[in-house]
Amino acid sequence: MSIALILLAAGKGTRMESDRPKVLHPLAQAPLLWHALRAGQTLDPAACVVVAGHGAEEVSAATLEFAPEAQVVIQSEQLGTAHAVAQARDALKDFGGDALVLYGDTPFISDTTLQTMIAARATHDVVVLGFEAADPGRYGRLVTQGDDLLEIVEYKDATEAQRAISLCNSGVLIAASDTLFALVDAVGNDNASGEYYLTDVVALARARGLSAGVVRCDEAETLGINSRAELRAAEGVFQTRARAALLDDGVLMTAPETVHLAWDTVIGRDAEVEPYVVFGPGVTVETGARIRAFSHLEGCHVSRGAVVGPYARLRPGAELAEDVHVGNFVEVKNAYLAEGVKANHLTYLGDADVGERTNIGAGTVTCNYDGVFKHRTTIGRDAFIGSDTMLVAPVSVGDGAMTGSGSVITEDVPAGALGLGRTRQVTKPGFATRLRDALRAKKANIGKE
Amino acid sequence: MSIALILLAAGKGTRMESDRPKVLHPLAQAPLLWHALRAGQTLDPAACVVVAGHGAEEVSAATLEFAPEAQVVIQSEQLGTAHAVAQARDALKDFGGDALVLYGDTPFISDTTLQTMIAARATHDVVVLGFEAADPGRYGRLVTQGDDLLEIVEYKDATEAQRAISLCNSGVLIAASDTLFALVDAVGNDNASGEYYLTDVVALARARGLSAGVVRCDEAETLGINSRAELRAAEGVFQTRARAALLDDGVLMTAPETVHLAWDTVIGRDAEVEPYVVFGPGVTVETGARIRAFSHLEGCHVSRGAVVGPYARLRPGAELAEDVHVGNFVEVKNAYLAEGVKANHLTYLGDADVGERTNIGAGTVTCNYDGVFKHRTTIGRDAFIGSDTMLVAPVSVGDGAMTGSGSVITEDVPAGALGLGRTRQVTKPGFATRLRDALRAKKANIGKE
Amino acid sequence: MSIALILLAAGKGTRMESDRPKVLHPLAQAPLLWHALRAGQTLDPAACVVVAGHGAEEVSAATLEFAPEAQVVIQSEQLGTAHAVAQARDALKDFGGDALVLYGDTPFISDTTLQTMIAARATHDVVVLGFEAADPGRYGRLVTQGDDLLEIVEYKDATEAQRAISLCNSGVLIAASDTLFALVDAVGNDNASGEYYLTDVVALARARGLSAGVVRCDEAETLGINSRAELRAAEGVFQTRARAALLDDGVLMTAPETVHLAWDTVIGRDAEVEPYVVFGPGVTVETGARIRAFSHLEGCHVSRGAVVGPYARLRPGAELAEDVHVGNFVEVKNAYLAEGVKANHLTYLGDADVGERTNIGAGTVTCNYDGVFKHRTTIGRDAFIGSDTMLVAPVSVGDGAMTGSGSVITEDVPAGALGLGRTRQVTKPGFATRLRDALRAKKANIGKE
Repeated sequence: MSIALILLAAGKGTRMESDRPKVLHPLAQAPLLWHALRAGQTLDPAACVVVAGHGAEEVSAATLEFAPEAQVVIQSEQLGTAHAVAQARDALKDFGGDALVLYGDTPFISDTTLQTMIAARATHDVVVLGFEAADPGRYGRLVTQGDDLLEIVEYKDATEAQRAISLCNSGVLIAASDTLFALVDAVGNDNASGEYYLTDVVALARARGLSAGVVRCDEAETLGINSRAELRAAEGVFQTRARAALLDDGVLMTAPETVHLAWDTVIGRDAEVEPYVVFGPGVTVETGARIRAFSHLEGCHVSRGAVVGPYARLRPGAELAEDVHVGNFVEVKNAYLAEGVKANHLTYLGDADVGERTNIGAGTVTCNYDGVFKHRTTIGRDAFIGSDTMLVAPVSVGDGAMTGSGSVITEDVPAGALGLGRTRQVTKPGFATRLRDALRAKKANIGKE
Repeated sequence: MSIALILLAAGKGTRMESDRPKVLHPLAQAPLLWHALRAGQTLDPAACVVVAGHGAEEVSAATLEFAPEAQVVIQSEQLGTAHAVAQARDALKDFGGDALVLYGDTPFISDTTLQTMIAARATHDVVVLGFEAADPGRYGRLVTQGDDLLEIVEYKDATEAQRAISLCNSGVLIAASDTLFALVDAVGNDNASGEYYLTDVVALARARGLSAGVVRCDEAETLGINSRAELRAAEGVFQTRARAALLDDGVLMTAPETVHLAWDTVIGRDAEVEPYVVFGPGVTVETGARIRAFSHLEGCHVSRGAVVGPYARLRPGAELAEDVHVGNFVEVKNAYLAEGVKANHLTYLGDADVGERTNIGAGTVTCNYDGVFKHRTTIGRDAFIGSDTMLVAPVSVGDGAMTGSGSVITEDVPAGALGLGRTRQVTKPGFATRLRDALRAKKANIGKE
Repeated sequence: MSIALILLAAGKGTRMESDRPKVLHPLAQAPLLWHALRAGQTLDPAACVVVAGHGAEEVSAATLEFAPEAQVVIQSEQLGTAHAVAQARDALKDFGGDALVLYGDTPFISDTTLQTMIAARATHDVVVLGFEAADPGRYGRLVTQGDDLLEIVEYKDATEAQRAISLCNSGVLIAASDTLFALVDAVGNDNASGEYYLTDVVALARARGLSAGVVRCDEAETLGINSRAELRAAEGVFQTRARAALLDDGVLMTAPETVHLAWDTVIGRDAEVEPYVVFGPGVTVETGARIRAFSHLEGCHVSRGAVVGPYARLRPGAELAEDVHVGNFVEVKNAYLAEGVKANHLTYLGDADVGERTNIGAGTVTCNYDGVFKHRTTIGRDAFIGSDTMLVAPVSVGDGAMTGSGSVITEDVPAGALGLGRTRQVTKPGFATRLRDALRAKKANIGKE
């Protein structure tokens, strides 16, 4: 059975006290929305419809950045969750499979849980995701009989007996697409807030002789974000889980609580991450690589056997091949460092290609910006870039070539050649002594400076 | 009613096991003393008297650094808190308002609490600050009847019934200045330790027909510091509160527990602070600025829209105007960077002025020290400082001027000019190959080095 | 009585799921094995025998690195702890003292506990280390009568009454060497797993009329490592204890939970360590030194009054004399900095000697590597190295000499001289304006780049 996602992302999020639409607040350095999208996409859905409302333009842009194939539909007025789902009808009018309703502010639903819901469709027409709440509070309650879900009762409408139920409604549900839209059509708004509630579809389904069932997940998966405080708490939850998952996968971290991960950080088994490392989005680290303390990585790839840091900054487009060493106070941006390259100290490599085994001396800078344009630097393999070499791009240094330390390289250096821009040293005997004496005399004259 | 502060700061702090006077131990990078002084100064006091004793000279210096208008009086012998207060009499002899007694080792009393005490003076002659203790232990107990405070009973003198009271004495009190000194005069030292206790003034006041009342605050506000362990605990308390206060004010921090704040750190709403940032004293960050990971700021100002770090160090006197970017491995000291300046990589800017929109290349250094004197560098607006430029101060670079990368600039560069100090590149074909072969041959000859 | 250590280190550690022998997994940056060895060596033992098995070659190398005088014997088959102890017989055949059995995977046994065990030998022939377990679970139980230990009962063989005992067996024991080996000989393997258990020696000793006693320690000391999760937990335990011990010793740390220590970190009283400092192995910091935030130290020595960081990296062989200042983005490796040297900004000092009071300018690099060999740089006292000086080693700069900023120093600079390699500045009026105009025109022509 093919699956369509309907992701509700229209809410304003008044309690966030922010101009930004709620689903675009960042969790682990990605919009909240992306977390739900990612979970949904593990199902390899045939269609994905995001229902936007507040800040629809930004929500649409963020959606398409993550999922270019998604359709964004607009809910102009926020008349309730059933009304929101109804907005997806046209987008799915030729779709004959199942529709799964997810929420842009509920980032932690797991792939496994979604798979279990799909499996449960074999025995039920409508499947709702529920959880045993530690403190059920004002959640909607799931009234069950054996395997069957009888109805979802809002807290305020619940009897005492129903309030004693601890099985609560997450809002996530799945049904055949045509069934879902037919049920949603039948939902009314004859209630205190005048909204169309998606929860009503369960009772409506049963009234039509359809069956409804429940899949249970851990309460933590259903955590929804409604305030900045909840967002911070969710960040903590995310980090704790992501660190534990890496440890389980065999990543070596002696102080995992000091490693900050992004939503999509990938680190291979037996890679090592020392204390105080921050990962931005888009980082992959291969097995056996070592990320040393105080490093900062974004949008980069670190291959097997590479050593990064301490105090290395890898920016987007940094691609480190096997056994590359990037050392302290070194920044790499939009640059490919081939196998075995070493850039160990105080260096900026931006917009560059560096060949195998080349050694980059301390204080080297690729001068990639002329004030208007950015230019590229190309260095061959087995080259030796002397300390404090300025590589004024566009420029290339050939295989096995060298540059003298302190040189400003403005012209290409052919393979095997030495590029040198250096004034011969002059030594002036006694000069330092005289200069120091003069400065001190001056200081003495001007008194207590 | 005008207010005078009497701040008791004479204690030795034996349990700190340190040569440093207790009230000068640092909390959130300021002497303990300053925390109490700051709370007191929110009342806009007409006078401020600090009673020093142990380490009086250092305490006096620290007091005057924070509050130049304060008077420091000396308690030569430590004969008790009432005796300490009495030392302030001469300093306040012409003062007709209220006197508030605070303690140099009690840093957390809030402004709000002090305001409430002042308000309570409308109905009571003497107002004492009390707290409901979770574990009253050996604290003095406040014996009350309705709104009235009857007496303060030391634990060792208390009856069983009195020991059952959980309302405890913080030591902080307020009364009309002349009343306070008259009461303090009447305090005796007929007790086990032979000291004059300030707590006795309550019973003395009531014996004279004056009324006494209690203002209650949270126990945490009354935390006093008597040992290094308590100081560390207080540091934790401070950081936790200060982080929470910033979050409440709308500062974005995804990992607030990794941000270390100073006593006076000011960060505007919607500014962002990434993980692992350390603030020294004297930092203000405007709304919408972004402080990236691993940055270290002291005595500086960061304006709206500026981006700092990662790995930026702003030292005292760094003043960043709007939209300035200070990037990785960049140090700024005693320098003004005007709107839109960018210094993104591996740079030292010390004792400098940089004009609007100027771009500072990687590896630039202001050579501000000649071994004896420090000199200033001035750079105009829209200038372009090439990578690895040495600016040998005193020197200036004009508006719209450029420097060639790798140049040592010793003479002023006029507006629109290029300053260049560079040897033309020489390329020696085959040299690198021959040199490497020679070195390897040498290595082979000397064996297994 | 002289002492021999028998340290059991033959286990595979299957639950570590690693190719590395269990006792070589790192705790606080040293092999687990070293922690037990260090505790044992505080007894000044006459002999030390390590029983290796799985990964014997690596275990042997690690043992000898820490304790060159140790003997490593091989237990080819892992037939139980008694069998392991028996492997040490030949190594100790002429030894007439006491033998103490320790474990390579039990790193936290304290010196004090071991001393107490030795003292208890005055009254007992065999002394076993026990602990009151919070949750005795499946530990072996110590059955006692008054001061006497009657037997060690494995959990699975214990009666209900014995299982109610909370005094458990740590495995550590001490006896006269010849007694121990005689008892070990008598141990059989008639049990479910067919192994020779060292625990059996207690019952055997008593059967021969010898007495056995118990010394109790805190349960935390007996923590053994069997999985990666336990190793991480042990790292947390180590760090918490080590930080607390430094605080007790009078080291100033305002955020000790952010300071990561190695197994052998030594920091003197009244030294200060700011937040976010990582210590690798082999670091000693003298009293009164200050290690600022974001610093990383390995294999180095920091003397009294020195200031390191923020963002300083001291690598192995960095030796800082009194009052040295090493500042931000500075790396020091295999270099001696004499009293009062300052290297405050963006510098790499490797393979160097620097004399008293010399000032190293920002951006200085010792060019110590020519692609094949490493060479040394020598700088005298009271020298002044200008910013961005490249010191092409081997090279020396004499006492009181100077180098001009931006110079590449390839030849020795005598005392009092100035070494200068700099092109005289050329200023080209209007050039910058024309260049910028040309670049902008080009950009306009190529459209919306």
